[in-house]
Amino acid sequence: MQQNYQSITWQDDHLVILDQTQLPLREIYSDVNTIGQVWDAIKKLKVRGAPAIGIAGAYGLYLGVRDLESKNFTSFNVELNRWIEYLKSSRPTAVNLSWALERINQTVYANKDKDLEEIKEIILKTAKTIHDEDKRVCKKIGENGAELVEKGWNILTHCNTGGLATGAYGTALSVILHADDDDKDIHVWVDETRPLLQGARLTAWELKQAEIPFHMITDSMAGSLMKQGKVDMVVVGADRVTANGDTANKIGTYSLAVLAKENEIPFYVALPLSTFDLETDTGDEIEIEEREPEEVTHLAKTPITPKKTDAYNPAFDVTPNKYITGFITEKGIVEPDFKKNIKKLFEK
Amino acid sequence: MQQNYQSITWQDDHLVILDQTQLPLREIYSDVNTIGQVWDAIKKLKVRGAPAIGIAGAYGLYLGVRDLESKNFTSFNVELNRWIEYLKSSRPTAVNLSWALERINQTVYANKDKDLEEIKEIILKTAKTIHDEDKRVCKKIGENGAELVEKGWNILTHCNTGGLATGAYGTALSVILHADDDDKDIHVWVDETRPLLQGARLTAWELKQAEIPFHMITDSMAGSLMKQGKVDMVVVGADRVTANGDTANKIGTYSLAVLAKENEIPFYVALPLSTFDLETDTGDEIEIEEREPEEVTHLAKTPITPKKTDAYNPAFDVTPNKYITGFITEKGIVEPDFKKNIKKLFEK
Repeated sequence: MQQNYQSITWQDDHLVILDQTQLPLREIYSDVNTIGQVWDAIKKLKVRGAPAIGIAGAYGLYLGVRDLESKNFTSFNVELNRWIEYLKSSRPTAVNLSWALERINQTVYANKDKDLEEIKEIILKTAKTIHDEDKRVCKKIGENGAELVEKGWNILTHCNTGGLATGAYGTALSVILHADDDDKDIHVWVDETRPLLQGARLTAWELKQAEIPFHMITDSMAGSLMKQGKVDMVVVGADRVTANGDTANKIGTYSLAVLAKENEIPFYVALPLSTFDLETDTGDEIEIEEREPEEVTHLAKTPITPKKTDAYNPAFDVTPNKYITGFITEKGIVEPDFKKNIKKLFEK
Repeated sequence: MQQNYQSITWQDDHLVILDQTQLPLREIYSDVNTIGQVWDAIKKLKVRGAPAIGIAGAYGLYLGVRDLESKNFTSFNVELNRWIEYLKSSRPTAVNLSWALERINQTVYANKDKDLEEIKEIILKTAKTIHDEDKRVCKKIGENGAELVEKGWNILTHCNTGGLATGAYGTALSVILHADDDDKDIHVWVDETRPLLQGARLTAWELKQAEIPFHMITDSMAGSLMKQGKVDMVVVGADRVTANGDTANKIGTYSLAVLAKENEIPFYVALPLSTFDLETDTGDEIEIEEREPEEVTHLAKTPITPKKTDAYNPAFDVTPNKYITGFITEKGIVEPDFKKNIKKLFEK
């Protein structure tokens, strides 16, 4: 299986990103040379998707420290941690960003006796490792998930969880891509995913590239399709999964999960191990990012409401574990009891 | 309670409609002089909302027969029935349209011995009666529903069910308007209602006119708000309710009903008696109108998907009666057992 586009590429001394805010109408690759540009690209969703944000953040941290002229490790480390906090502030809910940055932080600390120039190279190398690992992990998620799919199934997905959102292939979309690659004759229902239309703009674009048959629907149509027996499986990604399996993901996920359970349709969450947040016990503790009301009152920059209309715009919701059939990870499928079985995933 | 706009007005010899496809950015009143223009206005949603369609259809039928020069009742009646079928074809799911046209048909038949010019005047008079009755009925629905609302409640509604959709006040929105008029300090969550954004464009516009506090949300946010305890009541309209209480309404209604039940939130359907279809036993028999895929792949005429993207666009869904707390009608609140109690509504 090949993918003929890359959302993030490290090119000699800078990042190149496919600007996801311009898709599907324009394919624009942008050079990103500074940590400030990385912060901005994440904040403005030019780079989006939990794993892709982690990858971009890791390279961004290197761009931030590359030209530092610190006298010693202590002052270098102060700057490093300042940049880490700065990058984290671009998307507070996405756990992969913190995860990638903390991984670099730990690697730096383990090498603190080395020359500062050498440490900078180690940071770049770690960013590249995170990127490569993500590609391998996503492939494995897809292969594992594809085994759940039966011939001729209609699979419903939400938001964008494909190669654009990750190193390659994606998470939930990797399951779909690999099921198709296994000649399962699948058909996909793509939720448009208001307010930012990642399904309509990005998942539709990726499925077109892969030549997989699909239909777009509005988010409000998913429930009715389920009731009519037109959906055999729901598979979504995740932004953060707590120790008990509660899942923070794109707004609308909770509704899909409730509707799937009501209609006895399997509901899977596909994610890398790095998206689990074992430090957090349950979804009740997750802080939900609220975004600008203009995303709701406007559509593709066109106003759709009367002037000065108030809007509420939570970016995520939390799906309690009881609605989830299983988690599809690079280490296999996790079924209930989730608290026990998620813990097991991380045991050697 | 006053309403400072009219979706449909009969002016001397023609209809004037407030073109709902232009709201909220432009308030354009259009003259409608022929039955073909009425058919077109209904088909293109310039007039929309089940009762408003019935009213417009009734006047439209008069416009269709006004200039007929039939020689006798039989040939007049053939023409009349041809126009009735023609008008019905503009929105096949909306039961009020059939109801209004059949009511005129019966009135005509009861007066078949009269002069044809007199019969034409009876048709116009019946259309005006349907219009006036709807205003009174909607007021009563609002007064009855407002009694269910407690002080400080957050009420969620879907699509547009206001004065724009009816003779005045609306159905579900009439409940909201009257609860506000009773100083209940309510706040409203307005679903934007993709694909055609009737919530964002029309309900928001009507609530602004009435100065009732509200926030817009995307359809996908409603479930999460319910789970967070931020919704005290859901009230929607209906396009057709069968003898057992199964309810056809704007796509997305079924999902809201399932989510409300899961979160133990009262879910009410507000409607005039004319929206009940006692000839149909259950929702399984309702034909669901499918509309053009472009409504899904475009947003306010801007493409949001890659070129040549397939889309599915059912205009309605059917909510089984088990998810519904009660029906708010001009004759009071109907609670389960629905089959029995709906039947009772129509007994003298």
